[in-house]
Amino acid sequence: MKIIADENMPNAKTLFSHLGEVALVNGRTLTNEQVKDADVLLVRSVTKVSKSLLEGSSVRFVGSATIGVDHIDLDYLKDANIEFSSAPGCNAEAVADYVFSGLSYLYMTKNVQWLGKKIGIIGYGNVGKAVYARFVKMGCHVCVYDPFEEDSALSANFVSLEEILTCDVISLHAPLTQDGDYPTKGMLGENELSKLSAGVAIISAGRGGVIDECALIKNHQRLEGDIHLVLDVWDNEPVINQKLVSIVDIATPHIAGYSKQGREKGTWMVYQALCQYLKLDIVDTNINDAISAGCFSSFDVVVDFPHEEMLARCIHAIYDVARDDARLRYKYRENKENNVFDWLRKHYVERDELNTCTISKLNSSALTILSAAGFR
Amino acid sequence: MKIIADENMPNAKTLFSHLGEVALVNGRTLTNEQVKDADVLLVRSVTKVSKSLLEGSSVRFVGSATIGVDHIDLDYLKDANIEFSSAPGCNAEAVADYVFSGLSYLYMTKNVQWLGKKIGIIGYGNVGKAVYARFVKMGCHVCVYDPFEEDSALSANFVSLEEILTCDVISLHAPLTQDGDYPTKGMLGENELSKLSAGVAIISAGRGGVIDECALIKNHQRLEGDIHLVLDVWDNEPVINQKLVSIVDIATPHIAGYSKQGREKGTWMVYQALCQYLKLDIVDTNINDAISAGCFSSFDVVVDFPHEEMLARCIHAIYDVARDDARLRYKYRENKENNVFDWLRKHYVERDELNTCTISKLNSSALTILSAAGFR
Ligand SMILES: NC(=O)c1ccc[n+]([C@@H]2O[C@H](COP(=O)([O-])OP(=O)(O)OC[C@H]3O[C@@H](n4cnc5c(N)ncnc54)[C@H](O)[C@@H]3O)[C@@H](O)[C@H]2O)c1
Ligand SMILES: NC(=O)c1ccc[n+]([C@@H]2O[C@H](COP(=O)([O-])OP(=O)(O)OC[C@H]3O[C@@H](n4cnc5c(N)ncnc54)[C@H](O)[C@@H]3O)[C@@H](O)[C@H]2O)c1
Repeated sequence: MKIIADENMPNAKTLFSHLGEVALVNGRTLTNEQVKDADVLLVRSVTKVSKSLLEGSSVRFVGSATIGVDHIDLDYLKDANIEFSSAPGCNAEAVADYVFSGLSYLYMTKNVQWLGKKIGIIGYGNVGKAVYARFVKMGCHVCVYDPFEEDSALSANFVSLEEILTCDVISLHAPLTQDGDYPTKGMLGENELSKLSAGVAIISAGRGGVIDECALIKNHQRLEGDIHLVLDVWDNEPVINQKLVSIVDIATPHIAGYSKQGREKGTWMVYQALCQYLKLDIVDTNINDAISAGCFSSFDVVVDFPHEEMLARCIHAIYDVARDDARLRYKYRENKENNVFDWLRKHYVERDELNTCTISKLNSSALTILSAAGFR
Repeated sequence: MKIIADENMPNAKTLFSHLGEVALVNGRTLTNEQVKDADVLLVRSVTKVSKSLLEGSSVRFVGSATIGVDHIDLDYLKDANIEFSSAPGCNAEAVADYVFSGLSYLYMTKNVQWLGKKIGIIGYGNVGKAVYARFVKMGCHVCVYDPFEEDSALSANFVSLEEILTCDVISLHAPLTQDGDYPTKGMLGENELSKLSAGVAIISAGRGGVIDECALIKNHQRLEGDIHLVLDVWDNEPVINQKLVSIVDIATPHIAGYSKQGREKGTWMVYQALCQYLKLDIVDTNINDAISAGCFSSFDVVVDFPHEEMLARCIHAIYDVARDDARLRYKYRENKENNVFDWLRKHYVERDELNTCTISKLNSSALTILSAAGFR
């Protein structure tokens, strides 16, 4: 079997060589000629997969190691009877790490207490579910708003958007939509934000535009700055509102999902889908080829701190949102051109997920909280 | 034997109970009456030790768990034949940790490369020596300027102040002096700073006033911001120059020496001196009562990074100067009164020293670098 894979897809060669002969290619310049005699095509978001790329080829399976599918002509694949698989949710844990690193930062620097407070989550998809699960395991009171999920038989604690606005922490994980019954564009506008109370923390790592940024700046003034803002996504990326950057606690360039292991999970999910398509057993030991170890494999923690402090210390050691925030602010200061945002994303120093690190030696209640946060 | 100790001297009771009956007191309100029948008095910097406190008492030994002795009337103690001991250098390792955390921050956020560069150290006392030793073990080219030490038979690489100004990193550890042949007040003035080249990093954790702050701001402009500044000490503390705060990379409130273990080492050094005075063997196992374990006792590091990156990740996990910087900036923003600086020092979240953490599993060249930086 001949497999063509994007050279920037992590671990593709190691993993797929079990299944056939793997040729690595530049995904940006891929031609119909190159894929002609391939059976399997593995891409990232830089490759446009359409009739003109695949027509006349022997490709029977296309895998994309991404959560989005904007670069794929799904209708064509269906018509041509080509199997397709992507990697929804592969970076959900990375985004959840971002949320807790953001809260840990607020705790460490401004003494914002969030554990045991009322938490509101907007959007209960792959990411929202991962974030929800962690808060619930930590014993927080968690409310969810998702009009498309609330009628399902899920056990989450669904509430109205109004009620979310009364929470101490609000974490946004809805996509950007303009149409339908519940468009998300500007869904947190002047009317909603004016209901927020002082001391609220908002973490936005879904899509820019869901919060009305002008209204946010206005309400920051209304609350005399007593609102904590951790923003990863922005209206009008990559040209972002510098006035907003200057007032938020943490400003990052849409990298909440950029963990090393998340990218690798993308490849792994496509590998699993291909095995299934080929009716092969998925060899679970292959996950060791697929998902890298983190820099720190284990911490022995021998001093017991209050849970929020413990979480902050351990999370900060693995992933510190403040580092990404500082890099963004430096880059914009030295270079005011519009490509700073994209430059930062392209040159991101990939980070490890919390689940790459095992914590030992603590008492069991502290270990429970740390494992709820994602540690092993 | 009756021992009176300040209640805020860490571990005093555990440690000194081996030697006699220990009574803990409020060091700020201590009276002659309270110390009358004591044999040993143990203080911190809040207690003024003078004739009026000790006259007529049975005190034969005074120990101060501090590096400074401004609060002690040494002449009186000498006249009265009272033995005295303080704890010079007890926080030298803490300051060295600060220096390397500062450099790690610059590396992580601005990609400042410092390992293998030319390093200049001003002041070769307890702190300067500790910082020097780490850089040398890391294989850096290190120059030292200290006019009072350069004739001694020490092996350090002594140079002129002129030459220090050509270094890539300049670390300041001289005291503030106004008189003598080599007063340090304004020793880095307009003339000296105008010789700095773009890209230099300055770390100042000795005493404020050694750098002329107006000249520093001016030269920051001259170099168009291409100078990296990590400042812990300031002219005119506790009222510090906010213009300077706004242009430095890291601004902290004179806390470079504030490690948990450093404070405890102060008690331990006084304990050792008292044992010596009493002609008792120093029981080395007592050091376990004296010096606390750190939060993280060990890290297993299983991914090999370039040395600077490895150092940055490990140091950041134990002590991150950026946390102290963020707290300072937040506090000044919310409260512009003059007591912010002292408030921050008083409410400092004590940190662990790098030497509380053992690193395992790395290859030997990486371990050498990490142990040079202070890890076990
Ligand atoms: N910042 C990052 O790096 C990063 C990383 C991963 C995902 N994301 C983004 O985060 C969002 C969520 O990702 P996901 O993988 O969970 O997607 P998903 O499709 O699995 O989930 C989205 C959820 O939002 C819900 N939703 C839609 N309209 C809503 C509304 N009006 N109010 C509340 N909920 C609504 C949907 O019902 C769905 O459950 C996506 O937009 C994704 O692109 C960002
Ligand atoms: N920021 C903090 O939290 C912190 C912590 C510890 C020490 N300190 C300060 O750092 C300084 C050094 O501390 P230390 O314990 O090493 O003191 P130390 O007395 O052991 O050493 C000071 C050294 O500076 C040298 N020196 C004096 N004048 C000089 C000059 N003109 N040029 C160059 N060197 C000169 C002296 O010869 C001496 O070797 C002190 O002022 C101390 O108060 C600050």
